[in-house]
Amino acid sequence: MIVDGLQYNNWDRSLFEQARAADLSAIHVTVAYWENARETEDNIRQWNRWFEQHDDLIMPILSGDDLRRAANSQRTGIILGFQNCSPIEDDYRGVERMHSLGARVMQLSYNNQSLLATGCYEQGDSGITRFGREVIREMNRLGMIIDMSHSAEQSTLQAIECSSRPIVISHANPSSFHPALRNKSDRVLDALAESGGLLGCSLYPFHLPGGADCTREAFCRMLCSLVDRLGVEHVGLGSDLCLGWGYDKLAWMRNGRWAKTRDHGEDDSETLAWPEQPPWFAGFSGFREIVEGLAQCGMGREEIDRIMGLNWQAFLDAGLKPVEA
Amino acid sequence: MIVDGLQYNNWDRSLFEQARAADLSAIHVTVAYWENARETEDNIRQWNRWFEQHDDLIMPILSGDDLRRAANSQRTGIILGFQNCSPIEDDYRGVERMHSLGARVMQLSYNNQSLLATGCYEQGDSGITRFGREVIREMNRLGMIIDMSHSAEQSTLQAIECSSRPIVISHANPSSFHPALRNKSDRVLDALAESGGLLGCSLYPFHLPGGADCTREAFCRMLCSLVDRLGVEHVGLGSDLCLGWGYDKLAWMRNGRWAKTRDHGEDDSETLAWPEQPPWFAGFSGFREIVEGLAQCGMGREEIDRIMGLNWQAFLDAGLKPVEA
Repeated sequence: MIVDGLQYNNWDRSLFEQARAADLSAIHVTVAYWENARETEDNIRQWNRWFEQHDDLIMPILSGDDLRRAANSQRTGIILGFQNCSPIEDDYRGVERMHSLGARVMQLSYNNQSLLATGCYEQGDSGITRFGREVIREMNRLGMIIDMSHSAEQSTLQAIECSSRPIVISHANPSSFHPALRNKSDRVLDALAESGGLLGCSLYPFHLPGGADCTREAFCRMLCSLVDRLGVEHVGLGSDLCLGWGYDKLAWMRNGRWAKTRDHGEDDSETLAWPEQPPWFAGFSGFREIVEGLAQCGMGREEIDRIMGLNWQAFLDAGLKPVEA
Repeated sequence: MIVDGLQYNNWDRSLFEQARAADLSAIHVTVAYWENARETEDNIRQWNRWFEQHDDLIMPILSGDDLRRAANSQRTGIILGFQNCSPIEDDYRGVERMHSLGARVMQLSYNNQSLLATGCYEQGDSGITRFGREVIREMNRLGMIIDMSHSAEQSTLQAIECSSRPIVISHANPSSFHPALRNKSDRVLDALAESGGLLGCSLYPFHLPGGADCTREAFCRMLCSLVDRLGVEHVGLGSDLCLGWGYDKLAWMRNGRWAKTRDHGEDDSETLAWPEQPPWFAGFSGFREIVEGLAQCGMGREEIDRIMGLNWQAFLDAGLKPVEA
């Protein structure tokens, strides 16, 4: 069972086939960065169309049972998620609305300050806001998973504390591995693990030491030390694969509608292009590389299976359940 | 010349007549608290209808010249403003859009965290955000006035620093007068005055010591000490009069769409009602009371005129000019 905690690809049948060929049982996919409610609904409608057109390859995951169903039918289950809270706009009732449309994961902020929490590229960090506390309660109630991948430190620590259920950081690495603003301090990772949360480790070049030059061995050794520090059950993958897009999409992700002046975040180059992936993780075949890399580090089969997918499965099983009324 | 830096009334012809009878040359009125772009446009359309229906009593103020025109034609000029940045949603281009519709003042946050700045009722304060800096540049360029009445301390200090033009706090009092979260520290007031800004002093009961029991004398003595501290040119009025509304509107102002559970902010009573006004400032006739009260404190005619309206006039004259291209 392989589960990827985050992908944002320019999806088409060929990519769904590649996901199948790589034996992925589930992928958490992004349907919103800065999209408002209406735009998000449009993106979800597109997914519903794909579920219909490609039902031999993919199916929606709304519960832990759906993930088992996907695995048993040799399909890739798709978990719809938001990298920002823009889809709920200014309305706590937006959580229930988006949940009813099939969304199951939401980040409380994306790089910038949101109405709920601060993003990792802001200078200050106000923590979880008044509105944020209301939204966390709604997410907890419905079984929508809180993701703090792009959030700032205090906001993340407070989200862990405010949430009555474990949260995820679906795609990021330890700052000790590479000190990017997007990566997470030991303090955050320890609090995440102590509260039963899950870290999906990222293959996005800006989250890796040396970017595309980061070796498979270095990445897998990082996973091994994480397992030592946090316990194996709190470690998974969230590749952050972004296949098939042009620069326009990257500009949207980085600058939305909020920036009049171009702002590249942590990319200090002036290149108007996506960063290069490590050659051993340029697409879906990379998951097999990680399995091999972990084995080479001396990790046992059971631990490898957990990291590759079983931890995500266990987390989703519990996390997607609504609270009993 | 009397100028009121903030009112939010349930307007009708009778209130416009009362404003005229009290000789108000201009009022900054609120058209948005939590309203999004579309809802704000609806509210502005309502104002445009009133400008047409009651053009013997009121007219829109888009520039300093308009304020003179209102005064010369014995009408009350109306400055349209937002108490929050919700009307621009997530788009820096919203500033120009709203300016083109006639809005001339915008608060960067209202009680809560916004996408631009933190509100005064939040626990943390992240300061001016990445998006906030973009919006401040746009507001400075177009001549839309930045108002930090409901913002938190660090956010307010940073707004003063980021803005290339003076800002206002249209309706609040010094914390030293009454330590409400909505009132402002000496540090903020000093920075405001040093940068050429203006404070509109408020008559809203929660901003006054003793609420409705605050005497005219106590209020006017506060104005006198403010003049001593800041210099007369930085002191004006922003009554925060809210006439003619039921509780529903107050609930909207306090909780918008963000609160599932009722949150009364600084009103610790469980009363579902508007707070009572001081009897000497229960409506438009109160402005005359302040003139008399200031004279009784020994303030000279010239200073009284400045506080009652000439300071606002000078501020608007400069502040509403777009930057030359």
